[in-house]
Amino acid sequence: MTSGGSADIVPTDIVLADWGTSNLRLWAMDAAGHICAEHRSDKGMGQLDRNGFAPELGRCLAAMAVPADTPVLICGMAGAAQGWHEAPYLDAPCELSAIGDGAVRVEHDGRDIRILPGIAQRDRTAPDVMRGEETILYGLARTSQGDATICLPGTHAKWARLSGGYLTGFRTMMTGEMFALLGEASILRHTVGTSDWSDADFAAAVAEAHEAPADCLGTLFGLRAGPLLFGNAAASGSARLSGLLIGAEIATGMAGSDAPLCLVATGGMADRYATALTTLGIDFDMADAEDAVRNGLFALAARIWPERELLETDA
Amino acid sequence: MTSGGSADIVPTDIVLADWGTSNLRLWAMDAAGHICAEHRSDKGMGQLDRNGFAPELGRCLAAMAVPADTPVLICGMAGAAQGWHEAPYLDAPCELSAIGDGAVRVEHDGRDIRILPGIAQRDRTAPDVMRGEETILYGLARTSQGDATICLPGTHAKWARLSGGYLTGFRTMMTGEMFALLGEASILRHTVGTSDWSDADFAAAVAEAHEAPADCLGTLFGLRAGPLLFGNAAASGSARLSGLLIGAEIATGMAGSDAPLCLVATGGMADRYATALTTLGIDFDMADAEDAVRNGLFALAARIWPERELLETDA
Repeated sequence: MTSGGSADIVPTDIVLADWGTSNLRLWAMDAAGHICAEHRSDKGMGQLDRNGFAPELGRCLAAMAVPADTPVLICGMAGAAQGWHEAPYLDAPCELSAIGDGAVRVEHDGRDIRILPGIAQRDRTAPDVMRGEETILYGLARTSQGDATICLPGTHAKWARLSGGYLTGFRTMMTGEMFALLGEASILRHTVGTSDWSDADFAAAVAEAHEAPADCLGTLFGLRAGPLLFGNAAASGSARLSGLLIGAEIATGMAGSDAPLCLVATGGMADRYATALTTLGIDFDMADAEDAVRNGLFALAARIWPERELLETDA
Repeated sequence: MTSGGSADIVPTDIVLADWGTSNLRLWAMDAAGHICAEHRSDKGMGQLDRNGFAPELGRCLAAMAVPADTPVLICGMAGAAQGWHEAPYLDAPCELSAIGDGAVRVEHDGRDIRILPGIAQRDRTAPDVMRGEETILYGLARTSQGDATICLPGTHAKWARLSGGYLTGFRTMMTGEMFALLGEASILRHTVGTSDWSDADFAAAVAEAHEAPADCLGTLFGLRAGPLLFGNAAASGSARLSGLLIGAEIATGMAGSDAPLCLVATGGMADRYATALTTLGIDFDMADAEDAVRNGLFALAARIWPERELLETDA
């Protein structure tokens, strides 16, 4: 049984939004948790000043034909001090469900809009912050019981430790930014930027750095010296740089934990981390970041607006 | 007994030159090892094309009033493939005195000019190269007997292991370049670039990274998060970034060795590394890089041109 254009006639009960540094994703949902409409914009926090958020949200809601009285729940950098309206950090360790209680309300054209807080780790030896990832974590963890380690690769990769829906701690690793800086702006650019990718060289570098992560800083210059000395027979610079950084990241991220690992990634990033973990013989589950953040937002919206009677599922 | 203008009447027996990436330093010497004249130029390899080296050397020698038949011995990047004339690498491990045998001859205006080779470590697991530092090492090591570890801080810091005049191995660490990249071009620039220096924060970061160098990649983001969470009470970003990188560098550079350490540095860099080593309770001697490279060049010149009867000293 299929019906053409069904999205047009399903009423929108809630709009969910993930507003990051570089883009904005919106989902119009019905009360049963089905997606009525989706929208994407490249107007992330980095492209907007404080007065630019409301008009951009208005444009997106109009494009999705969302009714004027439908509430909107937003996570991510829109709640940063330099975003639309600051939603002060919750402090880790904490129950992830508490992020719903920390939402701040913004009025715009009479619509009820809430922006979720990020989470801060006010530990002087390991200060850290997240905005957006806490909602992904809630989406993953709200129905689970046991301990878990969650890896979210990226420019600033996050590694979180969960016990059921409780966030015990987290750490940000600048793996993606380091890869870009070293490969594009350091002396390694001469060899990394021009090299072809090699799966075998990637796997070897992952294993090497995972075994001796402390040597990572001392092995990087070899990416320049290797091609000088061995020419085309040298290892692939880009694969080796990526492997050394990711191998060291995994060693640090998993140190002292034997909890099951969940890798939250898509596309090429998911492939690369999955290859690294498989190379190291580490078992892991995979999850989709977009599904997780939408599930997290929907579950939080159900708590914030009980009168909307949103039907949480365990999906 | 002093005599005015004595440099003008002392005959020049040899000219020594250290021609690096960013500058050129020359010394006109007499046979007894005294400096008759010095000259500096900012025309390093990076500012010259292949045809620019000979005229620049000619200008400098003219400025120093060096006789037309005085030979010149050069170390450094002038001998790189992209320099004036390639002096192929010697292979480590090797006797450092062998670099004299590897000098290549360049004729210019009838003058005898020799360019010293660098040293390559053709080890597939730790490929590495140096050009210029081998002459510093020879200047330090030619009269010593025992084992030593030599640390030469810089953009690309070198750590070498010597046994008397024999180079057993070396490693380049991109500490200085990493500090500049992370402090100026990464997300850390917002907090590192604007922070005041704190000796106490530097020492604490050195100790932390030296104890757990594998965590270095995982602690860097704290330089961003700390000031967000603690404001002016956060640790100094610049001191902490420098301390984390240098602490990890020292841990890697000294791993597996209990040989005496010699730190070859001057100015602010010498102060910073000396503070770090003292913080860690590591004994070390200090040497001046300029004295060492000049001593190394002079001793090598004595072997290359025995008819000049240069008098090597043990200074």
